[in-house]
Amino acid sequence: MIEPKILKGFKDALPEEEYYRKYLINKIEETLHLFGYLPIDTPALEYKDILLGKGGGETDKQVFLFTDKGDREVGLRYDLTVPLARFVSMHENEINFPFKRYHIAKVWRGEKPQRGRFREFYQADFDIIGIDSIESDIEIILLIYNLLKNLGVNNFIIKINDRNLMHSIFEKIGVSNFEKQILSILDKYYKVSESEIKENLNTIMGDKSDDIIKMIKSTKELKIFELLKEKYDISDTRLEKIINFIKEMDLEQYVEIDFAITRGLDYYTGIVFETFIKDSIELGSVCSGGRYDNLTSLFSKNKYSGIGSSIGLDRLMTYLLERNLVPKVNFCNLLIANLNEKDLSLYYNILSRIHSSKINCEIYPQQIKLKKQFKYAEDKNIPFILFLGEEEKENSIYKLKNIRTGEEKTFSKIEELIIYLKNPQNSTNL
Amino acid sequence: MIEPKILKGFKDALPEEEYYRKYLINKIEETLHLFGYLPIDTPALEYKDILLGKGGGETDKQVFLFTDKGDREVGLRYDLTVPLARFVSMHENEINFPFKRYHIAKVWRGEKPQRGRFREFYQADFDIIGIDSIESDIEIILLIYNLLKNLGVNNFIIKINDRNLMHSIFEKIGVSNFEKQILSILDKYYKVSESEIKENLNTIMGDKSDDIIKMIKSTKELKIFELLKEKYDISDTRLEKIINFIKEMDLEQYVEIDFAITRGLDYYTGIVFETFIKDSIELGSVCSGGRYDNLTSLFSKNKYSGIGSSIGLDRLMTYLLERNLVPKVNFCNLLIANLNEKDLSLYYNILSRIHSSKINCEIYPQQIKLKKQFKYAEDKNIPFILFLGEEEKENSIYKLKNIRTGEEKTFSKIEELIIYLKNPQNSTNL
Repeated sequence: MIEPKILKGFKDALPEEEYYRKYLINKIEETLHLFGYLPIDTPALEYKDILLGKGGGETDKQVFLFTDKGDREVGLRYDLTVPLARFVSMHENEINFPFKRYHIAKVWRGEKPQRGRFREFYQADFDIIGIDSIESDIEIILLIYNLLKNLGVNNFIIKINDRNLMHSIFEKIGVSNFEKQILSILDKYYKVSESEIKENLNTIMGDKSDDIIKMIKSTKELKIFELLKEKYDISDTRLEKIINFIKEMDLEQYVEIDFAITRGLDYYTGIVFETFIKDSIELGSVCSGGRYDNLTSLFSKNKYSGIGSSIGLDRLMTYLLERNLVPKVNFCNLLIANLNEKDLSLYYNILSRIHSSKINCEIYPQQIKLKKQFKYAEDKNIPFILFLGEEEKENSIYKLKNIRTGEEKTFSKIEELIIYLKNPQNSTNL
Repeated sequence: MIEPKILKGFKDALPEEEYYRKYLINKIEETLHLFGYLPIDTPALEYKDILLGKGGGETDKQVFLFTDKGDREVGLRYDLTVPLARFVSMHENEINFPFKRYHIAKVWRGEKPQRGRFREFYQADFDIIGIDSIESDIEIILLIYNLLKNLGVNNFIIKINDRNLMHSIFEKIGVSNFEKQILSILDKYYKVSESEIKENLNTIMGDKSDDIIKMIKSTKELKIFELLKEKYDISDTRLEKIINFIKEMDLEQYVEIDFAITRGLDYYTGIVFETFIKDSIELGSVCSGGRYDNLTSLFSKNKYSGIGSSIGLDRLMTYLLERNLVPKVNFCNLLIANLNEKDLSLYYNILSRIHSSKINCEIYPQQIKLKKQFKYAEDKNIPFILFLGEEEKENSIYKLKNIRTGEEKTFSKIEELIIYLKNPQNSTNL
């Protein structure tokens, strides 16, 4: 016998987890479809060269690499961005630009599994590729707003910044040589103390760090655009236009500028953003992304600018479950008791009429003790059992029993039974 | 620059293909949910030991095996049955039996890619585990019937056989020593000529092969149960009960016995079946499976009998597309022309009212030449463009243009526009 086990950092999804994941993905797709986003898929395995690109970074160590039987160096995709870049480069003639695509799929990481971090998990990305416009920046922000609203999440804040604007400011201050270091220090703004940030900035740029700190703080007061104009002669920025649009739409409570959002050393070159749920900041960002100049630089001479975002499915699911924002698991509404094998065709006729009303319903697949059939329904959270025994057949009635309360009801017509089942107030388990 | 390429035997799914796959999977899940089947998922990677089991067969060569960084021998799952057996063994205390589960996911094969065969593809399996009853055999057959009907497929035939019954017959004829060889010869019944089948059987059992041939042919006349009783004193079989139930349900045109369906050397021990679409026999079976005695024999002391089935997603999709049984791709119904960046909030207000009526609608993400916006809509098969220009704003009207016919219509209320868009007759591209 072989011991049944799974690899460290991997896990099975039991029905309840899979049910919730399907619910979440469906709701996300609902919004993406409304906005005209198109689904794509790419292989789980890619050539190592493709996955690592220029390589050398932290990412390399994380990629699940193998040698296949044909001695090819291959790996499991570790994100959906590299495959997207490869996809756009290969299919540029088949794609209708601006290309609004989404991709919800598993990715794999070879890193040591840590607490709560898995080596196999889902990512959900959406992008607008092949266009650099303020409207597409705005679309991504409004899409995040709509996605979260559609999930029942209301108290979130999308924090935006512009790497391009940061660059201009750094130039004016005269610290643009240190841009990368500054961005990576600022990226930790909410993770460490202000004095640590100050100290780190100080080491690089001395006194000038005060300007940076001041600038970051001023975003809170929304005086930032005045400050930028006064102090650095920077005006009419894309960020300002976006914020003005947000005001016009009355969405200020959902979107704010935050110069401390830099997305670290990522490849973004324009707008960047992270999204936090206000009463669960500790979850981290549930939706992050930004604008990039050249998605396909590694694979193609043609440049594709775009803006994209990644949804933190697991974080969102944690929140939705905690706040009861997902409908309770409802695998099945009705079990037809198997009282007599000979009545199976009767049961199936009833079943098919109930199914045609879109009510999940099953027949217990064996004529066994009722106690066992009840136990099955209870364990599966099926709220009702239907009895079609000798007495019920004789009197042409349908006897329904509520499993939790024990209450019994009879119906003389199947249509009445269906109406009763369809009324959610009657399903005590729902 | 790195050449963008993908591994042989793998492929990208462009939006249209992914759209159709999602449609097919959703329709299948719809039926499975009605019957109370629960979704599960398992890791893509498993230990080599788990995947190969006793090993030694053809399967071994097909498994995508690797050595991971921790020097573990691992592999990508090559089907969903082995992971199911491992899953049931590991989670037997968390599972509610009889366990009706489904699993629709990618599997990988390391074999040399052949024409039309891929190294990465989807499988869709459903099983009832932990019960051996005629009702569960019947449920699987009726589920296949409902799955296909729900997809708009009508002219199919589910061919069933019983390996257990075959065994009894072989015993009576006195050829049970050759059971495996006979089953594997019969498995080719529809692929080679009758004389070849006869010859092959002859080599093994001489004259007695006539009995086998006669038996197979007699299933066509539906006299098989009389023949079995008369000649071999075999009666009251499960197969007969199933066929009687099928008659009771008036489903004879969809289900028939066929002794040539053996499912080769698979691990089935009871009912086996394959499903063919009558005008596309060459596709092969679109839904096959059977009953097994002991799913978890490799991993657990506990025995789990069950019955399961696998849907040929790619074959089904080929058929549905050929026969126009899938709704035409409809990514988006309406494009709002971007005539003035300053009107973006107006466009978004209209967009959100249209979205709330569940109509897919997008705003062109840049104020550019109308010709380009038209081209975009045309390429994406968006049937209508909405204009909200100066004239329309002044007169508070909505101007809609049908992209294919060029026809223009104006509406004075957004509700009227929505009603018009919702009427499928008006969407010429749909």
